[in-house]
This record gives sequence, C-alpha cells and structure tokens, in this order.
Amino acid sequence: MSSSSSNQMWGGRFADAPDAIMEAINASIGFDKRLAAQDIAGSRAHAAMLAAQGIVTDSDASAIREGLLTVLSEIEGGTFQFSTALEDIHMNVEARLKEVIGDPAGRLHTGRSRNDQVATDFRLWVRDQLDAADAGLTALMRALVAQAEAGADWVMPGFTHLQTAQPVTWGHHMLAYVEMFGRDRDRVRDARKRMNESPLGAAALAGTGFPIDRHMTAEALGFDRPMANSLDAVSARDFALEFLSVASISAMHLSRLAEELVIWSSAQFRFVTLSDKFSTGSSIMPQKKNPDAAELIRAKIGRIFGANVALMMVMKGLPLAYSKDMQEDKEQVFDAADNWLLALAAMEGMAGDMKANVPALESAAAHGFSTATDLADWLVRETGLPFRDAHHVTGTLVARAEAKGCDLPDLTLEEMKAVHEAIDETVFDVLGVHNSVASRTSFGGTAPARVREQVASWKEALA
Amino acid sequence: MSSSSSNQMWGGRFADAPDAIMEAINASIGFDKRLAAQDIAGSRAHAAMLAAQGIVTDSDASAIREGLLTVLSEIEGGTFQFSTALEDIHMNVEARLKEVIGDPAGRLHTGRSRNDQVATDFRLWVRDQLDAADAGLTALMRALVAQAEAGADWVMPGFTHLQTAQPVTWGHHMLAYVEMFGRDRDRVRDARKRMNESPLGAAALAGTGFPIDRHMTAEALGFDRPMANSLDAVSARDFALEFLSVASISAMHLSRLAEELVIWSSAQFRFVTLSDKFSTGSSIMPQKKNPDAAELIRAKIGRIFGANVALMMVMKGLPLAYSKDMQEDKEQVFDAADNWLLALAAMEGMAGDMKANVPALESAAAHGFSTATDLADWLVRETGLPFRDAHHVTGTLVARAEAKGCDLPDLTLEEMKAVHEAIDETVFDVLGVHNSVASRTSFGGTAPARVREQVASWKEALA
Amino acid sequence: MSSSSSNQMWGGRFADAPDAIMEAINASIGFDKRLAAQDIAGSRAHAAMLAAQGIVTDSDASAIREGLLTVLSEIEGGTFQFSTALEDIHMNVEARLKEVIGDPAGRLHTGRSRNDQVATDFRLWVRDQLDAADAGLTALMRALVAQAEAGADWVMPGFTHLQTAQPVTWGHHMLAYVEMFGRDRDRVRDARKRMNESPLGAAALAGTGFPIDRHMTAEALGFDRPMANSLDAVSARDFALEFLSVASISAMHLSRLAEELVIWSSAQFRFVTLSDKFSTGSSIMPQKKNPDAAELIRAKIGRIFGANVALMMVMKGLPLAYSKDMQEDKEQVFDAADNWLLALAAMEGMAGDMKANVPALESAAAHGFSTATDLADWLVRETGLPFRDAHHVTGTLVARAEAKGCDLPDLTLEEMKAVHEAIDETVFDVLGVHNSVASRTSFGGTAPARVREQVASWKEALA
Amino acid sequence: MSSSSSNQMWGGRFADAPDAIMEAINASIGFDKRLAAQDIAGSRAHAAMLAAQGIVTDSDASAIREGLLTVLSEIEGGTFQFSTALEDIHMNVEARLKEVIGDPAGRLHTGRSRNDQVATDFRLWVRDQLDAADAGLTALMRALVAQAEAGADWVMPGFTHLQTAQPVTWGHHMLAYVEMFGRDRDRVRDARKRMNESPLGAAALAGTGFPIDRHMTAEALGFDRPMANSLDAVSARDFALEFLSVASISAMHLSRLAEELVIWSSAQFRFVTLSDKFSTGSSIMPQKKNPDAAELIRAKIGRIFGANVALMMVMKGLPLAYSKDMQEDKEQVFDAADNWLLALAAMEGMAGDMKANVPALESAAAHGFSTATDLADWLVRETGLPFRDAHHVTGTLVARAEAKGCDLPDLTLEEMKAVHEAIDETVFDVLGVHNSVASRTSFGGTAPARVREQVASWKEALA
Repeated sequence: MSSSSSNQMWGGRFADAPDAIMEAINASIGFDKRLAAQDIAGSRAHAAMLAAQGIVTDSDASAIREGLLTVLSEIEGGTFQFSTALEDIHMNVEARLKEVIGDPAGRLHTGRSRNDQVATDFRLWVRDQLDAADAGLTALMRALVAQAEAGADWVMPGFTHLQTAQPVTWGHHMLAYVEMFGRDRDRVRDARKRMNESPLGAAALAGTGFPIDRHMTAEALGFDRPMANSLDAVSARDFALEFLSVASISAMHLSRLAEELVIWSSAQFRFVTLSDKFSTGSSIMPQKKNPDAAELIRAKIGRIFGANVALMMVMKGLPLAYSKDMQEDKEQVFDAADNWLLALAAMEGMAGDMKANVPALESAAAHGFSTATDLADWLVRETGLPFRDAHHVTGTLVARAEAKGCDLPDLTLEEMKAVHEAIDETVFDVLGVHNSVASRTSFGGTAPARVREQVASWKEALA
Repeated sequence: MSSSSSNQMWGGRFADAPDAIMEAINASIGFDKRLAAQDIAGSRAHAAMLAAQGIVTDSDASAIREGLLTVLSEIEGGTFQFSTALEDIHMNVEARLKEVIGDPAGRLHTGRSRNDQVATDFRLWVRDQLDAADAGLTALMRALVAQAEAGADWVMPGFTHLQTAQPVTWGHHMLAYVEMFGRDRDRVRDARKRMNESPLGAAALAGTGFPIDRHMTAEALGFDRPMANSLDAVSARDFALEFLSVASISAMHLSRLAEELVIWSSAQFRFVTLSDKFSTGSSIMPQKKNPDAAELIRAKIGRIFGANVALMMVMKGLPLAYSKDMQEDKEQVFDAADNWLLALAAMEGMAGDMKANVPALESAAAHGFSTATDLADWLVRETGLPFRDAHHVTGTLVARAEAKGCDLPDLTLEEMKAVHEAIDETVFDVLGVHNSVASRTSFGGTAPARVREQVASWKEALA
Repeated sequence: MSSSSSNQMWGGRFADAPDAIMEAINASIGFDKRLAAQDIAGSRAHAAMLAAQGIVTDSDASAIREGLLTVLSEIEGGTFQFSTALEDIHMNVEARLKEVIGDPAGRLHTGRSRNDQVATDFRLWVRDQLDAADAGLTALMRALVAQAEAGADWVMPGFTHLQTAQPVTWGHHMLAYVEMFGRDRDRVRDARKRMNESPLGAAALAGTGFPIDRHMTAEALGFDRPMANSLDAVSARDFALEFLSVASISAMHLSRLAEELVIWSSAQFRFVTLSDKFSTGSSIMPQKKNPDAAELIRAKIGRIFGANVALMMVMKGLPLAYSKDMQEDKEQVFDAADNWLLALAAMEGMAGDMKANVPALESAAAHGFSTATDLADWLVRETGLPFRDAHHVTGTLVARAEAKGCDLPDLTLEEMKAVHEAIDETVFDVLGVHNSVASRTSFGGTAPARVREQVASWKEALA
Repeated sequence: MSSSSSNQMWGGRFADAPDAIMEAINASIGFDKRLAAQDIAGSRAHAAMLAAQGIVTDSDASAIREGLLTVLSEIEGGTFQFSTALEDIHMNVEARLKEVIGDPAGRLHTGRSRNDQVATDFRLWVRDQLDAADAGLTALMRALVAQAEAGADWVMPGFTHLQTAQPVTWGHHMLAYVEMFGRDRDRVRDARKRMNESPLGAAALAGTGFPIDRHMTAEALGFDRPMANSLDAVSARDFALEFLSVASISAMHLSRLAEELVIWSSAQFRFVTLSDKFSTGSSIMPQKKNPDAAELIRAKIGRIFGANVALMMVMKGLPLAYSKDMQEDKEQVFDAADNWLLALAAMEGMAGDMKANVPALESAAAHGFSTATDLADWLVRETGLPFRDAHHVTGTLVARAEAKGCDLPDLTLEEMKAVHEAIDETVFDVLGVHNSVASRTSFGGTAPARVREQVASWKEALA
C-alpha cells in the first residue's frame, strides 16, 4: 500500500498492454448484454420483413427467426457463453446464430448495420423502462392517495422554512406529492411518445438501396413510425437524455419526500413511524430506528442526475453521425433506470406502511399561533378592516396570548373585543387548527372537504 | 494584490457586516425585477377577480388596476426607483402602488401571499420563454430547411468517427438537425402545456377562506386551469427544471452543429464559408476567419446545463412548502433562457448565411472508396451472394483499385469480372457518389428524391 | 403574453439582427470589466519590462505607466465610458490610453497578445479570490472555535441517521466543522501555489522574438515564475476549474452546517437561536423566525457547483490553443467567487451570533438510552466480557429501564447486578451523558478535555 | 415489450417486496467487496494495537491477525462465499473470521465501529488509486516527452479557433500537455497528502473510552497521523470529492488531447496515424481507420465528472455524523477511478505509438501567411515602426502576396521595399515557418532550442 508499489500496481493492472487495454476500453459486451432480448426482437422483426419484401427467402427467414428464439432461450437460461472478443451483444448473438442455423444467419444483416441495430435495441430498452416507471409512479401515487384518504382531516403543521406557518391536513400534504409524481408520470408518457420511433433500416447512416419496408418493422416492434432521417436515426441520443432528465426530476421529488421522512422520524419530530421493513435498528438501543431506506432514496438523485450529466457531457459537441463516444450511453442509462425504479418501489413500500402520529402532528400544528393568519383574514372578511390593519390587530392579540401563556383560541371573547370591538363569537369558527383547515375551502385548499374531492378524483384517475 | 491585502479586501468587501451581508444574500430585487410585467399582470387579474367576487369594491379594484398600469409604465420607462430595502419586485410594486393610489392598495393582497404570487410570476415568465424558444427553433428549422432545399443533391461525406463512411447529401445532413430541433420544439410544447397551470390563490400554502375564484384568474392570465393543490402550487419547481432540461438538450444539439461548423470552417476541411457577420478576422492575416459565433454557441451548453445542475442541486431534499433556498431559482433560469435564445438566434443567422463549398464536399465524399458498401449491397441484391461473401469480393476489388491508384468507379468492368464474374455493367449505377446517394431510397434515406420529399413536408409543417 | 406574441417577441428581442446578435454573443466587456485593475497592473508591469529590456524607451514606458494609472482612476471613479464596440476590457483600456497619452500607447502591445493578456488578468483575479477565501475561511473557523471554546462541555446528541446515537459535546461538533473548513483552506492554498505562474509573454501562443524578460514581469506581478510553455499558458484553464472545485467542496461543507442550523432552529429541535440579523420574521407570528440566511447558504452550493459543471463542459474536448469558447470562463468564476465569499461571510456572522440552547441540547442527548454503548464498553473493559456478550447484557438492561420508564442511570445497582453480577458502582461513572462524554478520551474523542486541547491548538494556529 | 406488460414487469422485478426491495437498496456487499484487502489490513493493524495496549491478549490478537490472512487468501483465491444477508464487506469478513478462529473474533471490534472502519477502508482504497494515477500520469508524460524529443523541430500549425495562427513545433505542442498532466499529478500528490490521515479509532462518532493508540494504527497503515476529530473522521467525504475533482480535471485534459487526435486522424487533416492497436478498421474500406480509443478517452470525462456530480449531490446538506446516504460514495469513486486509470493507460499507449505525418504538418503550417506576425514583429524590432504601423505594412504585403498567388517568403526583397523601404534582406530570417519558430526564443517559446531545454528538464524530472 506504500507509494513504491504504485508502479507495480500500474504495471499489474495493465500487464498485457496494449491489447488488454484496448479490449478493456473498447468492448461493450460486459454491459450491453442487457439488450439481448431487444436485440433478438429487432432481428426477428427484420428477418420477417426481409422475407415479406422478397429480399431473403421465407425458409431462410424462418430459420433465422427460430434460431434467434433458441439463442434467446440460451441467454435467458444462463447457458449462453458471452465472448469479449466478439465485443458486443450484436456480434455475440449473430455468431451464435450462425452456429445454430448455419449459412442463413449470414443473410440477417442485409439492409441494416450495427448503427441502426444498437439504436433500435436501446430505444426498445428505454421504452420498457418508461413503462416500468409509469407503473412504479402509479403504484406510489396509489399508496399516497391511500394515506391521503385515511388522513383527510388529520391536522399537521404546514411549514415554510421548516417553521410552522399554518395548519394543513395530512391528506393535503400527501396529495401535494401525488401532483408531483403525477407530473413525473406525464413526462414519462410524453417522453415515451416522442421516442417511440424506429431507427431500424437507417443502416450505417445513409439508408439502403435494398427495398426494405421500415414501416413493417416499426409496427412489429410497437413503434409508432420509422424515423424520418437516417442520419438522425443513428446519431441522436436525445431520447436517452430526455429519459435521464425525466428520471432526475422525479428523483428530485423523491428526495424531497425522503428528506421529510427522515426529519419526521427524528425523536424531536416523531411525526411518523416507519415500518421495520424499511428501517434498521440497534441491538442495544431498541428505540433507535434508522430510516435507512429514506436516506438511500434521498441519495439516489445523485447517481441518477450524475448519469444525466455524464451523458450530456459525452454528447456535447459530437459531430454526426456515429462516434464511438456514444458507446458510453448505455451504462449511464442502465444505472439510472435501475436506481430510479428501485427508489420508486422502496418509496411506495415505505409510504404505504408508514404510520402517522396523529396526536403529535396536531400538537405541532397548534403550536406557535399558527392560526394568526386565519384571524387576520377573518377580520378583513367579516369586519371589513383593510388587510394591513387586520394584521396589526392580530399582532396585538397574539402578543396578549403570548403574555397570558396560551394560544389564540384560548383568549376569551372579551379579551378580543378589548383589542377590536367588532370581533364577535364567530371568530372562534376560524381559530383552532381544525376550524382553520376547514375554512380554507378555496380550490386546491387544505380543507378536508377539498382534500376528499381530490382523493376521489385521483382514485378514479388511478383506477 | 499581495496576500497581506486579503484581510483588508475581506473587510472591505463586507465592511458594513452583518447588515450589509444579510441584505446582499437576502434581497432579490437585483434580479427579480425582470418579473415586473408578469407581477403586474398577475396583480391586475387578482384585483379584477376580487371585485367580481365582491371581496373588494369595484372602485377599489379599478384604482388598483389603473395604478398598476401607471407603475408598469414607470418601470418600462425607466423612471421607477427600485429599492433594495423593499427586497423584491412584489414589495417594490406594492409600495409604489400605495404611493400612487393610496389606501385601496392595501386591499390588493387579500387572499393571496408572496408565495403564490412569485410562483405565478415565474410561471408566466418561463411560459414566455418557452414561446420565444418555440419561435426561435422554428426560425432555425426554416433556415436549415432552406439549406436542405438548396442542396438536396449536393454530395458530401457521411462520417462515422470523423472518417468518411458513405456519401450523403447536404440536404440530408441539414434535415437531420431539423429533426433534432423539431423534437426540441415538441419538448418545448409539452413543457408549456404541463406548466400552464395557475398557482394564484394558493396563498401562503394552504389556500384561503376568502371566496376567491381561482378559475377566473387562471383564465385571465392564459393558464389552462388553477393548480389543484395549494401546497404543491407554492413548493413545486419542476416546471423550471423541465424548462432547463429542455433547454439543455437543445443546447446539446446546437453544440453538435456548432462543432461541425468549426471543423468544416478549418483550412483542412473548407466545407463551408461562414458569413463575415458571424466571424472575426485578423487585420494582418486576411484569409483567417475565426468562427467565433460557432464556438460561442458550442460553449453555451455549459452555462445552460450548469444552470440545470444548479437548480437541481438547490431543490434536492427540500421539505415542503416554501424554503428560502428556492429564491435561487430565478437567476439560473434567466441566464439559461437568455443564452439559449441568443444561441438559437445566432445559429439561425449563421446557418442561413453559410455557403457550402460544393466541390470540396463532393471531392471529400468521393475519397476513400466511400461507395464500397454500395458495391457490396449491389452484389447481394443483384447476384444473390450472401452478405459476408459480397463483403469479401468488395474487399478484393478495393484492394485492386488501391493498387491501381484509382477509386472504385474507375475500375473497368473486365477488372471487376476478373474478381467475380457475375458483375455486369449495371454495377456502375451504384458506384460514384451521385449514384450511391441516388440509390439509397429507403424511407429516411439520403437519396435526393427522399430529401426533397422531407423538405416539402417540413416546409408545409413550418409554414 | 399569448402564444401569438412570441414571434414578435422573438423579432423584438433580436430586431437588429444579425449585427446585434453577434455583438450580444461576442462582446465580453459587460463582464470582463471586472478585470480592469488586473489588466492595468499587467500592462504596467509589461511596460516597465519593455523599457528595462530596451524594447521601448524609458519615456514611452513612463508615459504608458502614468497613463494607465489615469485610466484606472477613471474606472475606479466611475467616470470611464465603457464601449461595447471595443468588445473587451483590454481594448477599452488601450483605446482610452491612446486618448490620454497618444502615440506611445501603440508600443504597449509589443511582445504580447490578447491571449496571454487575458490569461494573466484572469489568474491575477482568481488569485485575489483565493486570498479572500483564505481570509473568509479563517474568519469562519475563528467563529466556530469561539463557539467550541464556550461549549467545550455542553452535551448534545451525536446523531447518526438524524437519530441520537451517543452524546457528544457542542465544542466537539463545532470543531468537526473547523477541521472541514481547515482542509478547505489547505485546498485554497495548494490551488494558489499551483496557479501562481505568469502567462505574460506567451504572446498569441508561440512566444515571441522580442527579447522580453518574462521573469521580470512575473516577479512584478507577484507570480512565482513564468509558465514554461507558451501554448499551455494561453490554453489552460485548469486553474479556474481547480478554483471552482475547491469552492464547490467548501460550499458542500457550508451546506451541511446550514442544514443543521435550519433543523436546529425548528420548533421541534430548538437547539439554537439564530440572531435576528440573519433571520426574518412574521409581523403577526412573533415567535416565527425564519432561518433565511442559513437556507440561502445551503442553496449556494447549487450555483457554485453549477459553475464548475458549466466550465468543465465548456473545456471538454477543446483543441489547443485558444478557442472562443473559453470566453465563457469568466462569468462562471465571477459568480461562484462572489457567492462563495458571501456565503462564508454570512456563515461567519451567523455562527458567531447563534445561541445554543444548552438545556435543550442536554435533554435531547439524554434521551433514548444514548449511553448504552458506554455501558457495553464498560462491561468489556471492566469485567472482561467479550464484546458480543456485553452487548447482550446491555440490551437486557435497556429493556428493564424501558419497562420501568426510566433511563439507564436511573436503574439501581441492585437492578443491574440482577442482570449481571460483576457490575459494580463504578458503572455509574460512564452512565449519564456528562460521564459518557468525559470518558471518551481517545485521541480526537469528544471528552471536554480533548476538545479544550483542540481548541487551544486551533487558537494558536489561527492567531 | 408492450405497455400492458409493464405492471407485470414491475411486479416481476420486485416480486418479493418489500424484503427484496430493502435488501436491494440497502446491501452494499455487491460493490464494497472491493475493499476487502483494505478492510483486512485495517483490522490487522487494529488487533495489533489492541494487544500492544493490553486491551486484548497477545494470543487473541495473533489468532485474529492470522485468521484475517486466511480470510484474505480465500477472497483473493476466489473461494470466499459472499453473503448479501451479511450486508457489507465488514460483516462478511468478521463472520468468516469467527468461523475460522472462533471466540477471539468477537474481541476484534473493541474500540471501533463500522463507521470508522469503512472510512478507513475507503481512504486506503482511494490512496491506492492516487498512487496508481500518479504512476499513470508519469507514464503518459514520459510518452509525450519522447514525442517532443523526436519532433522538437517539426513544424506544425499553431491553431486558434482551429484556424492556423502561427507555426509551432510538434515538440512544443506535446510539451503543453506534459505541463497539464504535470499539474494533474501535482494535484494528485496534494490530495494524497491531505487525505492521508487515519479515521480508525473514531469509533461510531464520539471516540472511545478504551485506551486505544490511534497513532500506532495510523502508522501501521501508512497514514501520516490520526484525524483530530472523531465526528469529522466518520462524517467527512471531502477526500473522495477531491479525488473526483482531480480526476475530472485530468479527464478534461485527456479529452482535449483525444479531440485533437480524432481531428488529426481525419482524412482532411492527416496530421497523425494512430497505431492499429488503438483503432478499428472496416473490412471493405481498408483505408478507414476509426480512432475508437481516442473517442472513448474523449468520452470518459462524462462518467468521471458525472461521478463527481453524483457524490457532490449526495453530500449536499447532510447533517453530521453518518447518514446512510453516504453509502452511495463508493460506486461513484470506483467507477471514476477505473475509467480514469484506463483512459490514462490507453492514452499513454496511443500517444506513444502514434506517428506524426511531418510533411503534412509542415505544409499546413506554411499555409495562410502564418508568419505575418513574424513580419510585423520584425518591422517593429528592426525598423522601429510602432506596432500599429507595422501591422498596416504587413497587411499590405500579405495582400500583395495573395494577389501574386504566393506566400510571404516568396515575395522578392524589391516587392517588399516597394511597400516599406526600410525592409532589408534580414527579413527573410523570420519568414518561412522554420525561421519563424526558430525566432521565438522567449522563455516558454516554441523555438526548437527552447523545446529541447524543456525536454531535458522533463526527462530529468521524470527519470
């Protein structure tokens, strides 16, 4: 571990240089084997089209399509021997296909190239992740809506600057996240729609002279249409960057909720109790319950957005069409997708299982004259005081309550009238945290009635 | 400048600490004054609604609405005195309104707060930038389509790894970017649609007990609807992050085209001549023409994506609802928007004015046996050779041409037949760069006929 | 604000295109005027050297040097008329110098170019910021050491996962940040040492045939030596990236302390009270004290690290020597430096003024059997129990205390002996939070004695 | 692959939820097993110290130290069974140690915790990478110095904006990168020095009451000293961020050289021929040589700096001491280190093997009146013309040459005198690219004599 060993380590690490170095930096099979199912689906669609267009015979196409299923089952069964010398998944599959079916394998690559093939595979893979993220977001939204329904009228502090500002309802707070994850899901769907075009048949970059039918392969693979420009088809990676952007924004939302769960789980807040399934404990401090899953979810934005940065940097300033730099696209997207989906699943489980500490929430909400703005609004609304004057009266009443060691609803009507005589007993309708939240009935407001409407609306939308 | 001066500098810079430090870090009027028009539009809509709902009198609302126009004209006329002590644009406008119209000004803030106000202003501002970007992208696409139309059949090298791979047409290359910027524009439109909801009336975070009509203000401000959750309305900044993501991806596309223009302008490539308007020269080296604008456009991805990183980092882990951290959102979005729009305009001008060097493009395209794949494809297609065999025959013919010091189309039919006797004179239909591109007629291919179809389609779409 | 206005806006924004666009994207005087003092210092050193080497006459050099002082005083006095047409600070200064002193001004630019000039100016500016950051970090460390000294034995919870793990001392916690900021300061000093080399005399990129003395100008400007390679001198921006990296890591440390202050200021924690100078209040909720400055400091990592990303992206893949892309370096560094120094000053002020709530800290520390590990360690140390067995005994005792509704030190010796008979009364020496912290005397441990040693050591180092 | 399958996929991926989800997000053994050697080295040092301090018996310590060697040999031999249920490398090693040596294994964890243990392991690992990077940078610098020595007087274009500005020498260009990588190496060394402190003995966060000797373990592990604050020891990750920053800046330098190699390898430039070992070809286009390794090196800045972003984002706003978020640190550093070292090795191999095309370089350098500034400088130096007048005369002469269709050295003395009569035949000493570079003898200039001095100096420094 001393400095003197560094040259040996250097030497050791790259002992077989330069061939080993080139292989290490150049081969992609170590990671692009995750595209096997997509690669084979693409090849099967391509073979069927070649036969339909009379470019290969039906029997060759059948042999290819059957052979590819064999290869797929070998890969799924774990018996496939991946070869680094064959560099990537495309060559690995093709070489094995040749072993399985012989000469017809050589006709598969007609009218396409590795450039459009990898673009097709990668789009299919990303599309699957978008679908999985759509399902994961939906599941998380359902868990949050269930929490909102249970606690439509549980009162808790609405914070600004982590200071109690006004009371809100638990349901309202949960639904705020449903809105955020709902927009994340919309972004997923927009991204899916935009990227669902087929590069297959763009060939190396210029298209081909073979009478291929790109619409047919596009349809077979579930794409909405073939891409309209072959150079674009093999050069573009904005679909991957959009995926990473959408994932990053969603991870940001996850980090906010996760931060709240960490803070809410502290001994000082005690707003929620997380399930044992998503926490770890201490064998000698039985009350200590570490919110590990929440912390890890909070952290995931790092690697997901880091992947976004990585690929954006790779693509910066790349001339058309294909450059080898673009081989760096896949690992970033794989890692971001894996971690985004994992974080969504963990948050769904954790949000579904967590128990709100209703008394603690209400007690915190009632703390600190949190209904002062309700009082001021009441004065404006009911007595016609200008806003700034109502503010002044309220400040005086808060000072009285503070001096008396109580909160606003604990002042007597007489004490209030002494400050401003137009105050009458209906003021108590807005003081007290339950009255406060019940009064905020503006569209989108925190009133339990409004929350229940939104819950109903989301339940229908998520059914 | 010596080290000994650092303490004085430190002292000097923050001499009036801590008040000056707090003002320096806390006040936003230095940048949020750019929201003045949006702030006033929002306030005018709010005042009209308050009157319609009977919350303020018609005469007060009229006074407010007129007074705000006065304030706006002062700001636009440059006579408005901004005050740092008043911290932000909202307080600056409100204070001035009070001077202009007196007491009624105090009723404007009924049923709203600075939290929903700033969210409304900022959304309106971002929406304007999305509209401007839509227009800027459209203008750039038009310029590129015009280039494509002019050069639908100009032949140039299609590169992979910056090495000539196959001939393509200038028009095809231009249209590849039209596709990319077209998707950027789609992203702009999706983002606009998603973010076009009104936070106004969410108040501090919980909604309000005043009988406000959020649908009315939403409509007056051109929003599609009010946001459905008041906590979300004041807490969310995903609309700003989506704006930055969309801008970043678009800046990535700009950087790719800009890189090509820099390389193409080199003395070694000479593919294009940029307009003097977007270049700088040297007084003593008259032929030196520096592609300054292209380089600056290439660089803009830095600050635009840097802004994306900055805001993502700010939002990471922020609990609901408003935290002061979020004040850092605006400068990033302002800077990114300014630079994106500027880069689009500069690229539009540069792409519109640039002159392709057609002979140089064609000469480069013809270089290096760039039609070898055409020959191989012809062998497969016309003689039925398997792909891998066709490959082998082609390699032999290229070697013959290389030995003879000529390119493929310069070989005689006899020389070709000597290698593979099934070759006949129709082979020359695909050799030569013009024949090559003409043959690539697959959907999305580089054939001039295909390019002209796409040009026509885009011209209609962009009309 | 409607979509239909976007084209006009577009047109309006760039009405005078393309000249206005090129000026907007190309001119740097809007920001590089901040380099005026450095530019003039560099030119004065250069002029003196030209005279010493006999390249210009002494009288010309004197005229130049005097004239530059005049220009500097005009700039500092605010009377200088900056011209966008003259593009940058170098041309603005030189043009004015010519007006002031006439022909000799034309000799100043001998043996240098704008490329080495801007590199010199920028290094001088960055060096000043490093000195200011050194001073700012030192001041902040002093404020934290003062807190540590005051609270060397105040007990507070040591958290893991925001859950109380073990008691620590306030002083120990403060000193942890002193260590971090101390390493930040070391990084500042390493960066300063590395970047303190003079590019001046590298000329455009190749050096010059004039018999200039680069060592003389380097010395005059406080550089340690001239840079050894002229291409490197004008091409390198790693010094700026290292500045941004150092600033970013430091901003990360600031964000951690700021987060703690926000959490500690909450009504639920009440660990500290921040000074009114760095908080904002609510006129009607007098107890609400928003930690605005802490939140803004927490956010500053966004723009500082965003600037790091921006410049890294700009520099990615730039060929030698100067490319116009590099003009984007300055605004990023300016903004990052301003915000880092401001955040350091704000944190220094806030950390100096904050009041620890000692009873609340101690009460929180005592909560939750936080000395359970002390008990386990005691069992190992004093009774020779293996670690895992000691763990088991401790768990049993905690369960007893929990059942009894008390904490560990409240158990009687008899109750303890009933679980493990080797326990004797000396066990109480490690139970209770004060005993616990006092016992952790290992080097670097939280014992007040250790904290006081470290305070003394830091006070000497920071004197 | 259809949308309808997404729910199943979702379900399938997390079928055993929530336990499988928690294990997937929580366990680190999948990646931290790379720390095995460091973990065991740390434990062996700790055991020796415990014995020396009388905390465990000599025989227990011996058993532990021997047993750990056994475990290490199992891991290195590939026979070790890693268990995900045991979560991390520390528990895996400890559990196996218990199987190997029985009870004494239980005494190893005395006076330490997983928090200081992982911090120690990770620092040891990062230190090894810094040593390897030092060696890798040194090897790369040697390869570039060898190129510089071979081509100290080969003339090539010095570019600004990728336009020829002035002639420089190949050696000078190579040495510019030696300077950059030399500073990278300095940063490596500064980082190593700063991070080489031992966290071991900080225990969970507060230190320990056991009479441990942290100086002894620090020394045994090659650390310069123990860290002075136990909270800092387990909380800090600036050492990892500094590693990533240093690696990122170095990757930026690699990306610049890689970009040049890609451009220089194009058919249009032909400045260099890369070795077949680091290129890939086309079977039918034999002259096509794709610079794959250069492109991949250019791309590596993406993932390396992406890792920097990821970890910076994770650490933003984390309160002390340990939070689970920090588990995300290792994968980022592992990936960045692997790719940085690989890129350095590939660049060393490629730079060592590449062949400069000397005639093409010289021809490009002579193109475009590249010695115009030499002429202007000569006029100033030899005839005393003011700089701006010399500029004017030069411009006129260039125009004459351009009209005549020749370059500057091809003009006759008479033609020159006709423009400015003070010109004499010594002017030809600076015209022509060889004369030009020979004349630039200022310190750091491109003159072959200067380049050879720098080569000699570097050879000595790198010996």
